[in-house]
Amino acid sequence: MDALDALALSFSKLPGIGRKSARRIAFSLLKTDDRFNALLASQIIELKEKIRECSVCGAYCEGEICPICDNPQRDRTQICVVEQSSDSASIESTGEFHGLYHVLHGTISPLDGVGPQDLTIDKLLRRCDGTVREVIIATNATVEGDTTALYLVSLLKEKNVKVSRLASGLPVGGDLEYIDKITLSRSLRGRIEF
Amino acid sequence: MDALDALALSFSKLPGIGRKSARRIAFSLLKTDDRFNALLASQIIELKEKIRECSVCGAYCEGEICPICDNPQRDRTQICVVEQSSDSASIESTGEFHGLYHVLHGTISPLDGVGPQDLTIDKLLRRCDGTVREVIIATNATVEGDTTALYLVSLLKEKNVKVSRLASGLPVGGDLEYIDKITLSRSLRGRIEF
Repeated sequence: MDALDALALSFSKLPGIGRKSARRIAFSLLKTDDRFNALLASQIIELKEKIRECSVCGAYCEGEICPICDNPQRDRTQICVVEQSSDSASIESTGEFHGLYHVLHGTISPLDGVGPQDLTIDKLLRRCDGTVREVIIATNATVEGDTTALYLVSLLKEKNVKVSRLASGLPVGGDLEYIDKITLSRSLRGRIEF
Repeated sequence: MDALDALALSFSKLPGIGRKSARRIAFSLLKTDDRFNALLASQIIELKEKIRECSVCGAYCEGEICPICDNPQRDRTQICVVEQSSDSASIESTGEFHGLYHVLHGTISPLDGVGPQDLTIDKLLRRCDGTVREVIIATNATVEGDTTALYLVSLLKEKNVKVSRLASGLPVGGDLEYIDKITLSRSLRGRIEF
């Protein structure tokens, strides 16, 4: 295996990159500027040195505290619970949420050997003793995400906080004909009055 | 921009990786083994140091001469002309061709400012003075690939070699209803008698 095949093999281990795409990327790096390759390599090396988990919410960031937790403008009475640090970026992109986040770093998934003790649930409960009034559970609409949400609800009802969950239903532009039954029944149950 | 965003930006510049995939890859590298990240970075750095063009055919390889040109078992009377080094791997995967390759490193494309002098055409003509009997032109079935093929044919007719071109027509599994007119007319013109 030459250096080109070896690099393609490594790229093919990254998420969303198949064998052919990996080869295409490896070939493309033969034609790029040397500085680009050096930059990319150094960014990969430095990633884990520079990025750590925010000591408050657990999101990935460069400092001790992430820019959102550190921002005095954010509403400290709301916490949005997400599975992954990247999920908070998706919610931020809507511009609808102005509170803080809490990153679980996973979901309860017995099949993968992940239990509640492997997530940052204790830390979330400790955060709910303060000024927090509402916890919005924004785990994915999957079996694991729903299980984790239900587990969190059972723990949070002992705290003096309102607990909500992201609405589940038709995606915008969705067509009733092609939507699955479970989504459709959820969007019926969660119907909103005009 | 933190280290995570910077890495995602670099990944998004690679072919076939969009903004979201790049972010996903950058996040995934936070969770991989440190050794994997170090390996990937070193492979990127070493790529251009280790890989060079074969002095005979121009394919990317680690030594002075690529394994195919160096293999005494290969048929030295046939040369398959390809646009990119990666194209020879596609042809090799069919197991149908046992001759040598010649990599043009591009196609004639006036819009991109690439003329015949920018390709390895002179070298191909010099190779055709020896034992070569047939040149198979395997450039892509695009306007640029066809232009380059016609140009090569005009030069090669002065040499004592047979010149052929990859057949163009219906892909296997292709449906007449969905195929474009040009492909269909080519597959008609290139019809094969039973």
